[in-house]
Amino acid sequence: MSPASRYTYLGPEGTFTEAALRTLPEAATRELVPMVSVPAALDAVRNGEAGGALVPIENSVEGGITATLDELAFGEPLMIYREVLLPIAFALLVRPGTSLGDIKTVTGHPAAQIQVRNWMAEHLPEAAWESAASNADGARLVQEGRFDGAFAGEFAAPTYGLEPLATEIHDAQNATTRFVLVGRPARLAAPTGADKTSAVFWLRDDHPGALLDLLQEFAIRGVNLMRIESRPTGEGLGKYCFSVDAEGHLTERRVGETLMGLRRRCLNVRFLGSYPRADQVAPSVTRGTADDAFTEAADWLNRALDGRG
Amino acid sequence: MSPASRYTYLGPEGTFTEAALRTLPEAATRELVPMVSVPAALDAVRNGEAGGALVPIENSVEGGITATLDELAFGEPLMIYREVLLPIAFALLVRPGTSLGDIKTVTGHPAAQIQVRNWMAEHLPEAAWESAASNADGARLVQEGRFDGAFAGEFAAPTYGLEPLATEIHDAQNATTRFVLVGRPARLAAPTGADKTSAVFWLRDDHPGALLDLLQEFAIRGVNLMRIESRPTGEGLGKYCFSVDAEGHLTERRVGETLMGLRRRCLNVRFLGSYPRADQVAPSVTRGTADDAFTEAADWLNRALDGRG
Amino acid sequence: MSPASRYTYLGPEGTFTEAALRTLPEAATRELVPMVSVPAALDAVRNGEAGGALVPIENSVEGGITATLDELAFGEPLMIYREVLLPIAFALLVRPGTSLGDIKTVTGHPAAQIQVRNWMAEHLPEAAWESAASNADGARLVQEGRFDGAFAGEFAAPTYGLEPLATEIHDAQNATTRFVLVGRPARLAAPTGADKTSAVFWLRDDHPGALLDLLQEFAIRGVNLMRIESRPTGEGLGKYCFSVDAEGHLTERRVGETLMGLRRRCLNVRFLGSYPRADQVAPSVTRGTADDAFTEAADWLNRALDGRG
Amino acid sequence: MSPASRYTYLGPEGTFTEAALRTLPEAATRELVPMVSVPAALDAVRNGEAGGALVPIENSVEGGITATLDELAFGEPLMIYREVLLPIAFALLVRPGTSLGDIKTVTGHPAAQIQVRNWMAEHLPEAAWESAASNADGARLVQEGRFDGAFAGEFAAPTYGLEPLATEIHDAQNATTRFVLVGRPARLAAPTGADKTSAVFWLRDDHPGALLDLLQEFAIRGVNLMRIESRPTGEGLGKYCFSVDAEGHLTERRVGETLMGLRRRCLNVRFLGSYPRADQVAPSVTRGTADDAFTEAADWLNRALDGRG
Repeated sequence: MSPASRYTYLGPEGTFTEAALRTLPEAATRELVPMVSVPAALDAVRNGEAGGALVPIENSVEGGITATLDELAFGEPLMIYREVLLPIAFALLVRPGTSLGDIKTVTGHPAAQIQVRNWMAEHLPEAAWESAASNADGARLVQEGRFDGAFAGEFAAPTYGLEPLATEIHDAQNATTRFVLVGRPARLAAPTGADKTSAVFWLRDDHPGALLDLLQEFAIRGVNLMRIESRPTGEGLGKYCFSVDAEGHLTERRVGETLMGLRRRCLNVRFLGSYPRADQVAPSVTRGTADDAFTEAADWLNRALDGRG
Repeated sequence: MSPASRYTYLGPEGTFTEAALRTLPEAATRELVPMVSVPAALDAVRNGEAGGALVPIENSVEGGITATLDELAFGEPLMIYREVLLPIAFALLVRPGTSLGDIKTVTGHPAAQIQVRNWMAEHLPEAAWESAASNADGARLVQEGRFDGAFAGEFAAPTYGLEPLATEIHDAQNATTRFVLVGRPARLAAPTGADKTSAVFWLRDDHPGALLDLLQEFAIRGVNLMRIESRPTGEGLGKYCFSVDAEGHLTERRVGETLMGLRRRCLNVRFLGSYPRADQVAPSVTRGTADDAFTEAADWLNRALDGRG
Repeated sequence: MSPASRYTYLGPEGTFTEAALRTLPEAATRELVPMVSVPAALDAVRNGEAGGALVPIENSVEGGITATLDELAFGEPLMIYREVLLPIAFALLVRPGTSLGDIKTVTGHPAAQIQVRNWMAEHLPEAAWESAASNADGARLVQEGRFDGAFAGEFAAPTYGLEPLATEIHDAQNATTRFVLVGRPARLAAPTGADKTSAVFWLRDDHPGALLDLLQEFAIRGVNLMRIESRPTGEGLGKYCFSVDAEGHLTERRVGETLMGLRRRCLNVRFLGSYPRADQVAPSVTRGTADDAFTEAADWLNRALDGRG
Repeated sequence: MSPASRYTYLGPEGTFTEAALRTLPEAATRELVPMVSVPAALDAVRNGEAGGALVPIENSVEGGITATLDELAFGEPLMIYREVLLPIAFALLVRPGTSLGDIKTVTGHPAAQIQVRNWMAEHLPEAAWESAASNADGARLVQEGRFDGAFAGEFAAPTYGLEPLATEIHDAQNATTRFVLVGRPARLAAPTGADKTSAVFWLRDDHPGALLDLLQEFAIRGVNLMRIESRPTGEGLGKYCFSVDAEGHLTERRVGETLMGLRRRCLNVRFLGSYPRADQVAPSVTRGTADDAFTEAADWLNRALDGRG
């Protein structure tokens, strides 16, 4: 296969990321390559060794995945083309024949520990927890006999010759992870009508209200902010940039004008892509902010400049 | 002379408006025609009988001249091409030979009464005031012998065969009237670098904060509002439109985008012209709002749409 | 009668102001005294010669009555206790026996001229207009035979021995004048649940956005602005104060905190009164801005300061 | 020693957290107890087993420490009493006698890996990295011979019988971690004049501009936001609360009124403490927002209510 038909993802095999990637129709015709880290998965795209990479960006329990946010904000530019939402449902995976009473040690990604805390307190109050590099890696360690049980997605069981002893055991209802399919920047695809735009902006200064001013750029044009996360710029405490998702597509006038407004007033803006919303919800467009209102206003301006206002 | 070389003004002869008009260099080569009212002066322009009309729009003591504001907002569209600022200095005009002790009755425009109130209380405490239709008309009535003194501009004295008995007698320091030279709409002249833009906008609804939202359109683009006046729309109490002057010229991007923003969100916007500021003060342009910042941002948007962001 | 039981009003007898005053139940037991001007009516209250004064403050066609606005803003402090709304319906008053064909000259207040312009153009296209000091004064001049007809309220006819030749002849539908009953400042009466608060504020400086900042004080506390008018301060062009009406009563926490916010940030604030709305419409109170929300928040703050948050 | 004189901290011994704790003068007279996790350190305080806990809350390279943010936001209430800033300077710790050429495997906390990435690429391009639970734990594993080098603070060397082979090897200049000393809620201490207030707020709804509205509560009262971080509430993607630090002390009127404003408009607000700023920088207080301006405005309101405005 050509590199373009290869997709990397945050591995190893059996992670939720792989499960998310497999929900994409085109995954069936791609070579799927697990990588050891988010930066590694993205670097393969940057280097031309892969056409895309699927990485987690946000979890409804844990929050933003900082490795992904920072790679997209600070690394060599990439663009988001798709998003995938995956409910996070943990199972307790064990070697065949293991019963609850046999379990003295368990493992999993540190994030898993938080999400199964209550279940463990009730069902495995005596079991010792030790963190693994990933949930799938925990499953591998159980396969190798180093732990008695691993918290991971049920789909990881066959890969490691394990069996689910209990399923749906996460504490939080509606725990969901959001993944993004990232590629090298290219000309934007047309809007679908239910799109999302991601960007990062760096405030020019930190006067009281600088963030407020920038949120105004969105608000006065009726562009709804769906996510905002501050990330340190690395230049010292109190120096932040902001990673945001907004409703709409960059080709829509209200979104384009908003991002141009940010561009004018910020130290820097990095556009991260406009792509279809996984939930397919079309945004409600405030009166006066649809493309035809922009077109009408531009016509009006031309008439006014011409003395025909 | 052709109608185009005729300028009407709020008459009669000898008013401050005539004095203001004569400060314009081109007045020397125009036929200057006094009219009985602001609507009459403007209608002559609308009808093609005159090329321009000079009318008062604002006084630093009395406030907005509602006849002018309402004609510009509601009448057949006209455009402002120039503004003139004239310090308002009152003189007491009398028939030759009259002394202060002879003065039993005085007249003038009602606005004059307010501006000379203190002076009258001190120097003519017993004199009876009766209002005239204009200051110049008051001078005419003194000439005819119906009053003993008229408060008017000193320059009106020769026209009516009167003499100034006292000058500089207005109470308020810095009393100034602002006049506008109005013509039929035409293609906008180029900006001078120290310009002003006038417009009227009608709020779409009266939700709490509707005005606030629109002031935000100016603020986020760094466009300073110099004047804002509410005027009733005539549709009942509580129904207003807003007449504004803002710094800058409609061909400047921050001003154009602001007015397009108003256009999108308002029930209606009427552009009244971009013209040189009489005080020739260049506006301070906030970082990120100059034309080159807009151009750079538009280039950036094109690159982003193209995958070269 | 004692001075306290005397009400002055903008005279002469037969004006709309008198008609408005007579809609107040207590007018029946007061001595009603016409005065020649708004300042005269108000000064009688300031001097203790009257307990109250009714003056027009706003007209749905003409806009704010600047004499009243400026007296309340700049004169010795007074307070508004009541408002009255009166539909403005003009009649053409003539001496008994006069027919339309007899009418060569008409009079009225300049504001009347604007409001009956269309009617005159249709029914009295040849009649000459000359302005009178008030509509009632115009009626008196008709009685004296100096004019053939006067535009005034129908109720003025008997006072001057005239007859209405035509009624309901004003152009604008819904033309309404708003009057305020003004007295010397005193302890505020309790809110009725449908109240209005009037105030004047002077911006500390004229940086772009100063007005915006102050409107924010209202907006974030859910206090709806019903009227805002800029008035020159008399210190030169471009120097304004703002006269506002807002929903609610000063004893309501959201209103009190708003006005304290203005007080802190403005050069000056003058409170002009909280009084029942003539339309008796109770404001919609935004979530989190009712008095109980303020009380709960104050309790919360005390607990937080105490370590019991 | 009594529990009150015991301070827990995020262990093990030799972490940057311990180093930060030892910068506090009172640490000399306290029993300092390392705990295995942030929740464990905080629970000891909640349970009364310790009087305080020092935990990291923010790192200038890594961003917010989510375990701490979430414990403070969602766990049983605690209060912040102090903050400590510690420059993060990594050393490479080895067993005595080890030289750079001997190093095949290195370890450290995952955050350390990011901060020494460039240094490793230059000096140890071939070395294999494996993460440890903490930097100090990595040092322990080197002591045990499981790795050849550990990236940790130089101060950890003696605890584990190691030697620094290289120091000051972190990539980012000015890398700083901020720690907070947390205790059970109690009555607030008096402001020092250079204070900071921390809180968490939950938006009532997610209408476009809800966050904007709340930032306005800070802005109009001149309260500068120093940090804002969104955290998922656990109720699904797109549901956030906001953790903030603001300039000033809750007993200062502008801060108190701001937090009451949030309290009124938010679903919930949790106050996390007002405490001295580690940088001892006094905030610049905007005109009209100091305590005396609030006092003057409250006096003015009382006079206005009383008719003496």
